[in-house]
Amino acid sequence: MGEIYLALVHYPVYNKRGEVIASALTTIDIHDLARLAFTYGLAGVYLVTPLDDQLALARQMIEHWSQGWGAVYNKTRAEALTVVRLARDLAEVEVDVRALSGQTPVRIGTSARDFHNFGRDSLPGKATFPDLARQVAQPGPYLIWLGTAWGLADAALAHCDLVLEPIKGPTEYNHLSVRSAASIIVDRLIGLRVYGGMP
Amino acid sequence: MGEIYLALVHYPVYNKRGEVIASALTTIDIHDLARLAFTYGLAGVYLVTPLDDQLALARQMIEHWSQGWGAVYNKTRAEALTVVRLARDLAEVEVDVRALSGQTPVRIGTSARDFHNFGRDSLPGKATFPDLARQVAQPGPYLIWLGTAWGLADAALAHCDLVLEPIKGPTEYNHLSVRSAASIIVDRLIGLRVYGGMP
Repeated sequence: MGEIYLALVHYPVYNKRGEVIASALTTIDIHDLARLAFTYGLAGVYLVTPLDDQLALARQMIEHWSQGWGAVYNKTRAEALTVVRLARDLAEVEVDVRALSGQTPVRIGTSARDFHNFGRDSLPGKATFPDLARQVAQPGPYLIWLGTAWGLADAALAHCDLVLEPIKGPTEYNHLSVRSAASIIVDRLIGLRVYGGMP
Repeated sequence: MGEIYLALVHYPVYNKRGEVIASALTTIDIHDLARLAFTYGLAGVYLVTPLDDQLALARQMIEHWSQGWGAVYNKTRAEALTVVRLARDLAEVEVDVRALSGQTPVRIGTSARDFHNFGRDSLPGKATFPDLARQVAQPGPYLIWLGTAWGLADAALAHCDLVLEPIKGPTEYNHLSVRSAASIIVDRLIGLRVYGGMP
């Protein structure tokens, strides 16, 4: 399996009116994604926010649970948080992944909406789950972007190499939390191969 | 697809010392599970706690987001919460499912640990994901129990008809949040069939 990184993006994302904003960090996202990444053997989880106070908050929270009293109280939480890294923007994430792995990552956008490139080569193509599952079995690194709030801004998606198709259930409703979406994506890409496939 | 209900159980569950406790409600669990259930067309999500103050808190939270200002502010959240129901214990959930669907549900336990019945017919057997995915495609109802804190107490698992095998990644670590675990279980049981399977 290739090295896979998740990036939880707080800017640029949409708010419910479709405006581009910087969303607030949710500490439960950090724990859930760290546990998910640690369970599935991912190489790292980036928290991406340009806001200084949010970066400071994240640093403080990770220190609390990784060292001192928090780490004694909950060992599995401390262990999982070792995969978390902080970055100001997506460019900084890419630089960091290159520094860690020696290679430029394949950037994979995710969205609950269907992404269309209208045949323009300058925009990324769409990847299905089985296609991407086969791809990430090959040497990476791969960097999967997850949007918070109402999802990644189109400007961010346009900057990816591929955009993963949305998760769809049997209904028209598709407003999963980013925690649920990340879990399902990682399981479909990695978990099912480990498991041996699902009929 | 059969009618499928989730029950998020706050008692009896283990704490980290292996003692049986009643855990505290986490409001983000309620939103995540409601959104998951609504996306995948489940019949309902039960919050199960014997604590009066916790039931009152849940009722207040659901009312806030389903009516008045909260519902105006966030419509998809209000919609999703229509699937949530409250119950004091697992017996009350079963009575309610019988009242709704006219039939006794198949009770499916979940656990991050491997469950063994040591060949005793009085204890439930283990179901694999593909087996259970085929089963829930048939008329139900089915009731899937999810434990909070450090997981469902053995006494609760012993009371099920089947216990689903644990989710495993490529590592030895398997401390997913209940939000992640629920999302992966529902996707494997329902989402992948809708999608057409994964190789």
